[in-house]
Amino acid sequence: MAKLLEGREVTAALKTKHQTEVDGLLSKGITPTLGIIRVGEKEDDIAYERGATKRCEAVNVAVKHFVLASDAVQEELIELIDGINADALIHGALLFRPLPKYMSEDKICNILSTRKDVDGITDGSLAGVFAGRTRGFAPCTAQACMEILDHFGVELKGKRVAVVGRSLVVGKPLSMMLMGKNATVTMCHTKTADLPAVCRSAEILIVAAGRAKVIDKSFCSPGQILIDVGINVDEKGNICGDVDFEDCEPVVDAITPVPGGVGTVTTSILVEHVIEAARRSI
Amino acid sequence: MAKLLEGREVTAALKTKHQTEVDGLLSKGITPTLGIIRVGEKEDDIAYERGATKRCEAVNVAVKHFVLASDAVQEELIELIDGINADALIHGALLFRPLPKYMSEDKICNILSTRKDVDGITDGSLAGVFAGRTRGFAPCTAQACMEILDHFGVELKGKRVAVVGRSLVVGKPLSMMLMGKNATVTMCHTKTADLPAVCRSAEILIVAAGRAKVIDKSFCSPGQILIDVGINVDEKGNICGDVDFEDCEPVVDAITPVPGGVGTVTTSILVEHVIEAARRSI
Repeated sequence: MAKLLEGREVTAALKTKHQTEVDGLLSKGITPTLGIIRVGEKEDDIAYERGATKRCEAVNVAVKHFVLASDAVQEELIELIDGINADALIHGALLFRPLPKYMSEDKICNILSTRKDVDGITDGSLAGVFAGRTRGFAPCTAQACMEILDHFGVELKGKRVAVVGRSLVVGKPLSMMLMGKNATVTMCHTKTADLPAVCRSAEILIVAAGRAKVIDKSFCSPGQILIDVGINVDEKGNICGDVDFEDCEPVVDAITPVPGGVGTVTTSILVEHVIEAARRSI
Repeated sequence: MAKLLEGREVTAALKTKHQTEVDGLLSKGITPTLGIIRVGEKEDDIAYERGATKRCEAVNVAVKHFVLASDAVQEELIELIDGINADALIHGALLFRPLPKYMSEDKICNILSTRKDVDGITDGSLAGVFAGRTRGFAPCTAQACMEILDHFGVELKGKRVAVVGRSLVVGKPLSMMLMGKNATVTMCHTKTADLPAVCRSAEILIVAAGRAKVIDKSFCSPGQILIDVGINVDEKGNICGDVDFEDCEPVVDAITPVPGGVGTVTTSILVEHVIEAARRSI
């Protein structure tokens, strides 16, 4: 049976660390504060916001909520972000995406100050991840994968890692961060020839394909560590990953569950980034 | 015998294209203009400047030279770049690096306007390459590799490509550009385990390791296309690549020579970027 890489173990460790860090900041008169910006009333956004708020407040990170109507004009949102940039008492901001189609998401993301960009949506943060420099923050989901590997003591140096999926929120930044830890990364995607063989040859396989259960045991090999970034709903209405867990689990050495894996850690990374943004603001 | 992927064939094709493009701009009253910024009198810089100037002037792209003393203070350089940013008659700027050690290269690079950043040194350009968006320009050497592959009709979609070297001027941006063309890229470096085997399994091998002749035939396999980005001086004082040409050439299907390969194309890409920057300025 594969070792289960449970997110709650990682979040528990992070929580302890965050409490100490926040206590330190509070004693200096600084309350790390996250601004959450939401346009409209999308169910997924509201659920995430609820979870993130709970996770923040559990360690005394404050949350301010900014909600615009689903038909808000772009200028309203820009004004709101400008206000957050100027507000020294808000250290980080999370903007739910996708934005309404009539808005220029690319333009709006880059209005946010890179210093407050705790989910890696600005050019500054992306350049930082790409170059391996401190600028803004990496996307939380990508960093959640790194945190899980680190927590469970997975050595990356010299390891063959396959990353499936090339999104700007997971695949691309994660590939850069893995390479920063001296892994040998192969970036895979829908056009990769013989994807099962490429995946099998990896010692660590990370899947962020965005489609339910596309990875079965034909992609796996014994000894492998399998990280599933996907969150999907299957034909029975249950939450499932991009990995067919039942099929793969007997083959690999270690695997993240869905739910309860990467997704669980993501909001803790958000908290981590808000605390770090508050520290950098000193 | 391997097909020789000669840079001059690529630059000749680019020259014809550039002449037409510049004629079009001149007819609109726009003279595409490159500003070259040099601190000190380093021989390599001066040689590159001479070559780039010649390549520009051959297609009527104008060049303005800005030279500071090797002991110039940082503020002088910043003022100079500010001036170039503000000068509507200069469309692109090339800054020789490394800068003197007492300067903050990172800070200075980001003073240049991304719009004029024809060699991909700003955060904006890097974020653009990383995200696959139009922002500034890719580093010229990385794009020169793409141009060679394109010119010689090398299909990238679904191909296994190994990139050796993870610098911000070649390896990283090149990996992103190759993935943008749907190649499956493995990013290799000094910590990669069994590098020869990883390289042999690639259909296209691109070497930007920055060390003379580190790639011999044990890294190669029949049918392979081999791109050598390196420019080094060997023990006899001759210019050589990162690839041991004599050893690898009999094995692979196609190979770039050094000199006469990627390096030859780099300045043509610089010209390409200046023309494009002039076009975007309209």
